[in-house]
Amino acid sequence: MNVGVIGGSECTKEVAHKAFELGRLIGEQRWNLVCGGRSGVMENVCKGAKSTGGLTIGILPDSNSDKANPYLDVKIPTGLGYARNILVVRASQFLIAVSGKYGTLSEIAFALSEKKVVFGIETWDIEGVRKVNSPLEAVEEIKRMVGKKNE
Amino acid sequence: MNVGVIGGSECTKEVAHKAFELGRLIGEQRWNLVCGGRSGVMENVCKGAKSTGGLTIGILPDSNSDKANPYLDVKIPTGLGYARNILVVRASQFLIAVSGKYGTLSEIAFALSEKKVVFGIETWDIEGVRKVNSPLEAVEEIKRMVGKKNE
Amino acid sequence: MNVGVIGGSECTKEVAHKAFELGRLIGEQRWNLVCGGRSGVMENVCKGAKSTGGLTIGILPDSNSDKANPYLDVKIPTGLGYARNILVVRASQFLIAVSGKYGTLSEIAFALSEKKVVFGIETWDIEGVRKVNSPLEAVEEIKRMVGKKNE
Amino acid sequence: MNVGVIGGSECTKEVAHKAFELGRLIGEQRWNLVCGGRSGVMENVCKGAKSTGGLTIGILPDSNSDKANPYLDVKIPTGLGYARNILVVRASQFLIAVSGKYGTLSEIAFALSEKKVVFGIETWDIEGVRKVNSPLEAVEEIKRMVGKKNE
Repeated sequence: MNVGVIGGSECTKEVAHKAFELGRLIGEQRWNLVCGGRSGVMENVCKGAKSTGGLTIGILPDSNSDKANPYLDVKIPTGLGYARNILVVRASQFLIAVSGKYGTLSEIAFALSEKKVVFGIETWDIEGVRKVNSPLEAVEEIKRMVGKKNE
Repeated sequence: MNVGVIGGSECTKEVAHKAFELGRLIGEQRWNLVCGGRSGVMENVCKGAKSTGGLTIGILPDSNSDKANPYLDVKIPTGLGYARNILVVRASQFLIAVSGKYGTLSEIAFALSEKKVVFGIETWDIEGVRKVNSPLEAVEEIKRMVGKKNE
Repeated sequence: MNVGVIGGSECTKEVAHKAFELGRLIGEQRWNLVCGGRSGVMENVCKGAKSTGGLTIGILPDSNSDKANPYLDVKIPTGLGYARNILVVRASQFLIAVSGKYGTLSEIAFALSEKKVVFGIETWDIEGVRKVNSPLEAVEEIKRMVGKKNE
Repeated sequence: MNVGVIGGSECTKEVAHKAFELGRLIGEQRWNLVCGGRSGVMENVCKGAKSTGGLTIGILPDSNSDKANPYLDVKIPTGLGYARNILVVRASQFLIAVSGKYGTLSEIAFALSEKKVVFGIETWDIEGVRKVNSPLEAVEEIKRMVGKKNE
């Protein structure tokens, strides 16, 4: 299963810490982590996932991997610019937004328009986003939802 | 110049009326109207633009034109689904959002992330969107901004 | 109806002349001309179409219109790079290839994989491409095929 | 490093055997295998790569993974239809074409237009494709080229 994490390429230390924690939890679950492959939230969530042996996938805006963060197992350069945001959404069964600006908002909106479940941690307050207070809460919710499907 | 109008494929009579009025004003200016080519706001804005002899362009989600509205001069089927929203944004120098749901929100977010000017008529209340009270106000603002550039 | 013309951004004088002639004939039929919007074959076919009052549409690889040729009524910057080739194909009911290199080959291949009719004038010799000896022959063939559909 | 293998979703037993062998060799090198994620050449090359513990990535045309082959570690549904072919090309440092029809031809053409190295095994005879007689020859050539870069 692919879980997508979306968030800004720049972030505060506190947000970086939460992203790392989220990555760690995703890695522990052996879910593939999908993200935009760059810095900030993307880099920290990848670093966290790698710390528990998770698999990390970066769908990059550029046509090469020069600006990829160093914690990616799989780099997918697309050459599509911001349009790659849609691919991050389509590649993910669940999305978790952490902070973020307009790029993150576009991914939230795409995910909701394609009726995907989006969890939000200190991010845009948009109707449809499931606000959670911590990385753990998001991961527990996904576990619960996946469990239900498999029953 | 291309002006993009974004909004839902379903809309109220009141919103449809505003979309028509907006299209009429855009057509009068001899700006090309770019939209997603389907029903609702898209159809009504095209109908308005055609009423004043404007040129209308629909960038369609489907790989054919079966669901295109009947007021399009140029139909561009893309086969990209919602990802075509990005093309509507990239093809437009200015964007005007009229009402709309998540699809419209994704276009607003993309436009703002690519630093384009977005006017909003009864739409998502997002920081960066320039709220206007009428189609006329949006068109007057664009005229003013274009005028400035050309001075 | 949209007719797509594909070919290189650089071309010989002789090929440029044929592209112009092709555009002229397409414009006379009041078909919309779709192309990649740049120089070479694209520019000359547009120039020809404009000489008979046709409507010209350029689907550009760049995210702006700086490199667009001057004979376009509608400019669609995509920011997708060569990936815009697919959009040229999807937007066209018929394709005509004039000379060209790998970019043109990719468009021919896409068109054939999507089961579209492709005419070829001094271009890649690929099974499935309908070789014609002149712009006139291509346009006459399309007229015949469209006529059949409408009977 | 990502190596892309392109080829048809249907293939003969003999071609399937070669695709498996190619996947086996790619997996042994610990290169990531990128492909279109479906049946035929794509399935057999993935099966081969998994037999030696390689990592397999499928960039799917659909918006979900229902038609993915069962040997994929990472599934990237794109919802772009054949346009995903470009992403397979952009995501790969080297391409190897095995047999194939128009879809494969489009990928060959894209790769060559983006100046990527393409090896060909019983595939389209296009100028620029480096014809090799076996999967082993392709892999040895890539090893040689990568080695040179790293010296």
